[in-house]
Amino acid sequence: VGFTHTLRVRYGECDQQGVVFNAHYLAYIDDALEHWMDENLPPELRVAFDVMLKKATVEWVAPARYRDVVVMDIHVSRWGRTSFDVTIDGRAGDRPSFTGTVVYVSVTPGTADPVPVPDAVRAALDADRVSP
Amino acid sequence: VGFTHTLRVRYGECDQQGVVFNAHYLAYIDDALEHWMDENLPPELRVAFDVMLKKATVEWVAPARYRDVVVMDIHVSRWGRTSFDVTIDGRAGDRPSFTGTVVYVSVTPGTADPVPVPDAVRAALDADRVSP
Amino acid sequence: VGFTHTLRVRYGECDQQGVVFNAHYLAYIDDALEHWMDENLPPELRVAFDVMLKKATVEWVAPARYRDVVVMDIHVSRWGRTSFDVTIDGRAGDRPSFTGTVVYVSVTPGTADPVPVPDAVRAALDADRVSP
Amino acid sequence: VGFTHTLRVRYGECDQQGVVFNAHYLAYIDDALEHWMDENLPPELRVAFDVMLKKATVEWVAPARYRDVVVMDIHVSRWGRTSFDVTIDGRAGDRPSFTGTVVYVSVTPGTADPVPVPDAVRAALDADRVSP
Repeated sequence: VGFTHTLRVRYGECDQQGVVFNAHYLAYIDDALEHWMDENLPPELRVAFDVMLKKATVEWVAPARYRDVVVMDIHVSRWGRTSFDVTIDGRAGDRPSFTGTVVYVSVTPGTADPVPVPDAVRAALDADRVSP
Repeated sequence: VGFTHTLRVRYGECDQQGVVFNAHYLAYIDDALEHWMDENLPPELRVAFDVMLKKATVEWVAPARYRDVVVMDIHVSRWGRTSFDVTIDGRAGDRPSFTGTVVYVSVTPGTADPVPVPDAVRAALDADRVSP
Repeated sequence: VGFTHTLRVRYGECDQQGVVFNAHYLAYIDDALEHWMDENLPPELRVAFDVMLKKATVEWVAPARYRDVVVMDIHVSRWGRTSFDVTIDGRAGDRPSFTGTVVYVSVTPGTADPVPVPDAVRAALDADRVSP
Repeated sequence: VGFTHTLRVRYGECDQQGVVFNAHYLAYIDDALEHWMDENLPPELRVAFDVMLKKATVEWVAPARYRDVVVMDIHVSRWGRTSFDVTIDGRAGDRPSFTGTVVYVSVTPGTADPVPVPDAVRAALDADRVSP
């Protein structure tokens, strides 16, 4: 159920304390979200729909370290009319590591003009949420 | 009033849309906070005090672009017993660009054990807040 | 024959021209080399052997782009007494993309003191070179 | 004499060994070169001239560390017909740290087609080389 994205921590992403530097978690989350959209939104849906990142939050419970496999589970956690939230639960190795939340605004592609989330997009991303 | 940190957007920090890639804002904020602590906390205060980043949020109003000068104003926005929030207001050129908020937990250096924020640290960071 | 490391270009690694920003190729190469050493050098060999990066060169023939799979083939291209070269041939998708060469100096772990490359290390890395 | 670019090492650019991760030196060099071109090539020269990075080399003598100020001196070290080399001498604090060399190919803007380096470009970049 839901979408999972996996990556492996690189040496150069770890700081002097031996843990992943905080900004890279946003890069991991971005990479996961790009794959998630690629996988769930067929090209025809992307002609009339794009997203603009409005807000991103990362909350940490334990650091990821060099050589850890980071596994991120993604699901839509709120639907608004022109915006929605996506939650990313991240594990590092077998430990819970962080939770990310992003707020996306649905926009006309190529602009910053908010538009209602198309029903087909919502259906596609919700389908992912409840089935593999 | 308060502490200001300035940097200049690098070409390699901008993505295909010509704007700073989202994860780099956290790196900018981290750089600003490091300078802020270096400037405001004398070494003797750092023997018994360190911080652990618990949560970070970035909210965008307008993107920063290549060659923009990014100016960040920093102030403590909440004091708790063992934690506190710091708010970072970021401009790009002459436009408001983003607001960052981080939650720090005060810890015994070298550990993840929360300890009350020392009064001297609070005074030092508050002094910065109300005077240049 | 030889060691191959694979990764996928992330969106945030591409610049305004839609190609991977030049510095990230060194990060890709570093990631490949770390995996190569992890795979080929058993822990007991790493007690008395470490490397220091002395020089790195990247030469490009075609850029890697977002979503490209980057495949890197690695082999030792020169053995010296206390140093050796490693060549990394990188493809992006099905196109040759870049060649990296690094010069490593063999050092006593934890120091910058050059020491002859142990025979066992040379054998381990050469074995990789001529067999899968 | 010549162009100098200065930056300050950020915490997140340092790895577990407390030194700047190797790939970031290329990012520093790129930033220095962008400033150097911005400063020396007036916009009218850039209409008919652009560069493509063909090759980059970094050779280290001593690492840069967190809080170091990195100072880079830049000069053209070879002129060819359609290509040229630029050398970047980098200091960290008061220590020599690294030397970078890049090979640029002069191209018609927006293409990968080599064109001879315009005389005006060569004069502009050479003027920089021998005078402040």
